[in-house]
Formats: sequence, C-alpha cells, structure tokens
Amino acid sequence: MDVRAAVALEAGKPLSIETVQLEGPKAGEVLIEVKATGICHTDAFTLSGDDPEGLFPAILGHEGAGVVVDVGPGVKSVRKGDHVIPLYTPECRECEYCLNPKTNLCQAIRTTQGKGLMPDGTSRFSMNGKPVLHYMGCSTFANFTVLPEIAVAKVREDAPFDKICYIGCGVTTGVGAVVNTAKVEPGSNVVVFGLGGIGLNVIQGARLVGANMIIGVDLNNARKPLAEKFGMTHFVNPKEVGGDIVAHLVELTKGGADYSFECIGNVKTMRQALECCHKGWGTSIIIGVAGAGQEISTRPFQLVTGRNWRGTAFGGARGRTDVPKIVDWYMDGKINIDDLITHTMPLDKINEGFDLMHEGKSIRSVVIY
Amino acid sequence: MDVRAAVALEAGKPLSIETVQLEGPKAGEVLIEVKATGICHTDAFTLSGDDPEGLFPAILGHEGAGVVVDVGPGVKSVRKGDHVIPLYTPECRECEYCLNPKTNLCQAIRTTQGKGLMPDGTSRFSMNGKPVLHYMGCSTFANFTVLPEIAVAKVREDAPFDKICYIGCGVTTGVGAVVNTAKVEPGSNVVVFGLGGIGLNVIQGARLVGANMIIGVDLNNARKPLAEKFGMTHFVNPKEVGGDIVAHLVELTKGGADYSFECIGNVKTMRQALECCHKGWGTSIIIGVAGAGQEISTRPFQLVTGRNWRGTAFGGARGRTDVPKIVDWYMDGKINIDDLITHTMPLDKINEGFDLMHEGKSIRSVVIY
Repeated sequence: MDVRAAVALEAGKPLSIETVQLEGPKAGEVLIEVKATGICHTDAFTLSGDDPEGLFPAILGHEGAGVVVDVGPGVKSVRKGDHVIPLYTPECRECEYCLNPKTNLCQAIRTTQGKGLMPDGTSRFSMNGKPVLHYMGCSTFANFTVLPEIAVAKVREDAPFDKICYIGCGVTTGVGAVVNTAKVEPGSNVVVFGLGGIGLNVIQGARLVGANMIIGVDLNNARKPLAEKFGMTHFVNPKEVGGDIVAHLVELTKGGADYSFECIGNVKTMRQALECCHKGWGTSIIIGVAGAGQEISTRPFQLVTGRNWRGTAFGGARGRTDVPKIVDWYMDGKINIDDLITHTMPLDKINEGFDLMHEGKSIRSVVIY
Repeated sequence: MDVRAAVALEAGKPLSIETVQLEGPKAGEVLIEVKATGICHTDAFTLSGDDPEGLFPAILGHEGAGVVVDVGPGVKSVRKGDHVIPLYTPECRECEYCLNPKTNLCQAIRTTQGKGLMPDGTSRFSMNGKPVLHYMGCSTFANFTVLPEIAVAKVREDAPFDKICYIGCGVTTGVGAVVNTAKVEPGSNVVVFGLGGIGLNVIQGARLVGANMIIGVDLNNARKPLAEKFGMTHFVNPKEVGGDIVAHLVELTKGGADYSFECIGNVKTMRQALECCHKGWGTSIIIGVAGAGQEISTRPFQLVTGRNWRGTAFGGARGRTDVPKIVDWYMDGKINIDDLITHTMPLDKINEGFDLMHEGKSIRSVVIY
C-alpha cells in the first residue's frame, strides 16, 4: 500500500515528505495506522549524522500512537481496531531479559531492530522499488507502519492519540525512571538536572510518588514556571550559585539527594548528579545520552561511601505491561501531558517541529496525521 | 594504667614498642583487654604517610578481639567479662544513618574518630605525659584500649580471639560485601578481582550464598589453590588471556557477571569490574581503596544499559548486629578463617607482620598478646 512518510534520505538533511510503499504484516506482525507522533531528540540525533548507528534512508519516529488495522498470522495479543502505542523497547516475555525482573531491556529482536529491519531481516518499507529502513522498530513518521506484535502496547480507546503518543518515549522515560528504576520512596529528596521534557516528566514522577523536595537544576530561568507547575519545589540555576553547585545542593538538601536524575546528556552534570547524592544511600540515575566516546568520572570514594550510580532506558518500563498503566495515570489526571505538548503540526510541517526543538522553543511537538 | 603498645610515632617509620598510659573508661566507654589483632593494609597505608588523614603519634590497629575489663558510667549493652570485637564503624542505632536501612555508615562519632579522639574530644592514651592518638576508634595495637560502647560487638565466649579478630575488618568486609551490600542471589555468576584476603572472603561469601560461577581474577597463579579451597570455580590470569579481559569474562559468564567485586584498589580494574557485568542488571561493587586523587571512568552507556556501580565499606555490616552473626558462621564452619591467618606473632614482632604483608607472603598476620 502507499503511505505518506517523512523520509530521512541522508544524514544532515531535512526530512523529505514522500509517498512510500508499505508491505502488509507478516507472521507475528501488525499493521498500525499512526494517528500522532512526537518528535524526539533521539530522532534529531540520528538525523544529524552524529549517531554512529544511524542508517539511511530510513523512516524515523518512535513516539507514536495509533490503531491496529491488520494483523499477520499468529498474532494473538492485539486485533484490528485496538488502540496501541508502538514500543522501541519490546516486551517478548520469553527472553532472558524479560524473565529477569531487574531489567526491561528485552533482547528478542535487538539485532534486526538495530539494523533497521523487521525480525525476518527485511524491511516492509520501500520507495521507487528500493528498501527504506525502519527506525527503532517503530517508524512513526509514516501514517501507516508495521511492527512486531511484541512491540505494541494495547491501550484504552478513550485516550487521545495526540497526547498519549508522548508516552511512547518521553513520558515513560521520565516518569518510569522515578517509578521503575529508582523506585523513589515517599518523602525522598530528589534533584533533577535539566528541565526539558524528560526532566519535567521526572519531576511529575517524583511528585506522583510523594517526594519531599523536588529540586530542578537548569541554566535557563525561563524553565521555572512550568517546572513548578509539574511539582518542582526548588529551582537552582548553577550560574547564579556562588561557588560549587554540588556543595550548594548538598546544603539545600541537608546532606544530599536521596535520588538524582541527569536528563541532559552532559558527562559533567552526570558527575555533579552523583556527587550531590547523600552519603550512605544516594542513588543517581543517568537518563541523558552523552555524545559518542564521552566518559563519566568520579573518585571511587563517592561509591565506597554509599552512593549508587545507575542508568535507565525507557524508564525501566516493560512496554506492554507498563505503558497502559501510564495511559491510565494520564486519563486519571495523575500526570500532565497536555502542558508538555507545546506545538502540533501536520506531517508536511514536520521539519518545523525539528527547528522548534533545536531552537529550544518547544517542549514537545506532535505531528497529527 | 600502663599498657604495652606498638606506637606509630611518625609516618614512614616502623612501629615502636612502648609502654604508654591509658586512662580508664569515661561515661559510655568500655575498657577492653585486647587478646589478638590482625594487621591490615589500612594500618600500613596510614603508617606509610600516604593516607592524607593519617595523624601521629597514634596507636594503630583496628582488627581486634578481646574482653571487657571495665565499663564507664551509663554503659548498658556490655559488662565486665564480655567477649567483644572493636568496631571501626560503630552502630549507635540512633543517628540518621543507623535509622536508614540502606546504609551501615553510622556517623555518631565520626568527627572525633577521624581526629583520633574519643567522643569527648580527648585521647585516653598518653606517653611521657603527652597525648597519643587513637586510630579508627579502635587502637588494637595495644594490649588494652578504650572504646565507646557503641563501637563494640558482643560475641560468643567460645570463639577463639586469634581467629575472630579478623572478623573485625577483613572477613566482614569481604563476606559482608556479598551478603549485605550486593545481596548476591543463589545461582548468580560472580567475578572477583584480586585474590588477597578481601578477595578470598568475597569468594567464600559467594559460596555461602550459593553462587554459581565464582571467577577469581589475579595476576598471580600462586593464588589459585587457596582461592579454590574457598570456593572459586574458575581462575583467570589477565596476563594469560589473549586480548581483552572484559570480553573474556563476558564470554566465560555467557553474557557477563551478575555481580563483580573489585578487591585491589586499582581504578583500571574497577572499570573492568563494571564493564564485565551483565547488561541489564549486573552490579559491580568497589571494595578496594584507590590512591588519593585517582578517579574511575566509564562510558555512561554502561550504566544506561543497566549496569550498577556501587561501593561498600565494612561489608555493609552494622557491627553490633552483624558481627556476632559472622562469628556464629565461623563457629558453625560456614566460613573459613583459619586458612587465611598465615602468620602469628607477639606484639614485639609486629613490624615483621607488616614486612610479610608488603612482601606478599602473608594473607593475614595476627598479633597474639
């Protein structure tokens, strides 16, 4: 079938709106009509050419929501008409990782997904007779896409696509880091480095679980009002702190953060996030993605005296199990997505969404098909 | 009273056997007759002058066992005749740290202990009328010493002093890192870097809790027989591995260690220990103490893909609660201490114990008073 897609033809160029061909779902696969998709920094990272694993031509996009319109042979867990969110981290419930409660990093289709292919080693997309690659197993920058059954989360039908698409990545990454990875306890003091979309979702995750102090750290004072709306109790601008930001945060929390979250991708703030943690038990979670080859450092004394250094991907969430719960939290008013979606646009304006992100003008832009 | 002590008069010099004066216990303090003490790398580190926090003159030693011979006013938890192990990490059961189940780093007397003083800010030791400092709150290189009540663990009376003194530091540090800090589960694959005293105690801790593979990593093949006796299932000499030690360990464990322990104090092996951990859930615990100013590094990707970097001090043990249990484990034959104590000597030969350690000829030397 013909579908409309924003195609990444090559690195460093804007996306190109094209009509591409999509094959129907094979065994274990589902065809989704994408209704909305967020535009994420990860898409921009790959499009820029800085992602060493980026492949072209490809249909980017990994933060979508839509409706199942067809299923291949053997598909049992979803059927035509189901509302779903595509999962770049699948949940096969059978691999060594899915069977270990300590991780969400299902490896069932990792190799082919990393190559931009479906599990059978081929692409469903093509243009002018030549294959176009999938991206993160999702390719939500097309109005129809094919995914493995294990990579879709069935969600309730009354939830609006143009909001819950953000649960496909950013919301789950931030809220899940608090809930699933850190398991922040009520009364904890939390420090969040970086008040972009991920940081704001960490903040509302911390509020959701009853944190005490929720301290946001950002160089941009303009972030303060929205962060406060999401639950931030204290704002710290490192430029305005006279002296060492770590010492300032330790003093503010009377001993250090119980949990800190790095949502920037800067190895220097990753170190600060660890070192502002409380001696004895403070845990720092890295969410941001650092540039290729960059390294984090600290004195081992920081760990020997009880700090824990960890990371998280997709908020530690097992998508098929956890994403529907987060949709419920949104529908119940426990988390706020609406205020994070600052811009919407049709597919043919998608490059404007990337511009808004690069200019720091948007929290999240959503393409509505 | 006059007591016999090996005094560290200044950095870099051998200990000097002296008669020093010891005041009796004040309120909340106990007087202990030390019956035996181990000689630990930490004593040597301080004596060398490399320890930036080392103070002189002092009576070193922190790995002892003895008998309570007097108690000061208000002491309730021990009495004359009790067998005890001094604790360089006390357990007050009242401070913010003791009340947090995630840590064992009681801070009740930290400031004065770090200055070589009792909690009232003075020393009980003197020589020729001048104060001699305490060390790590223990000073077991004297045949009598005074400690705060919160810094002694009462243990069973049938346990031999010349063996259980080692529980005062090395045994608890190694076994406790497995049991308390990592909480290694049965069936786990464990990698231990460094097969000295701490490493051997990690190995027997891993055996105690039912680990599957217990892989020892050391440059010295001579360590292999004793490590095997303690439970090591596989030995790896990095010099004999063609290529990358991390890749070798990941292959040997079919994916990486569930838990790794660094027992050397080398920041390079700390990185290897982290990176040989299993994606998704592997946890690396730093036990070894690195040189002043040295730093650990890795790519944040290692953490984002699910590895955890942690550390431990005194094996995560709360001394008054956990040390008596470890004495029981020794008496029940669950852990082996006898084979780790390779040399014993009287106090006036204590410098020979340091020599044996520096020459790598001993696992543990014990001074028997």
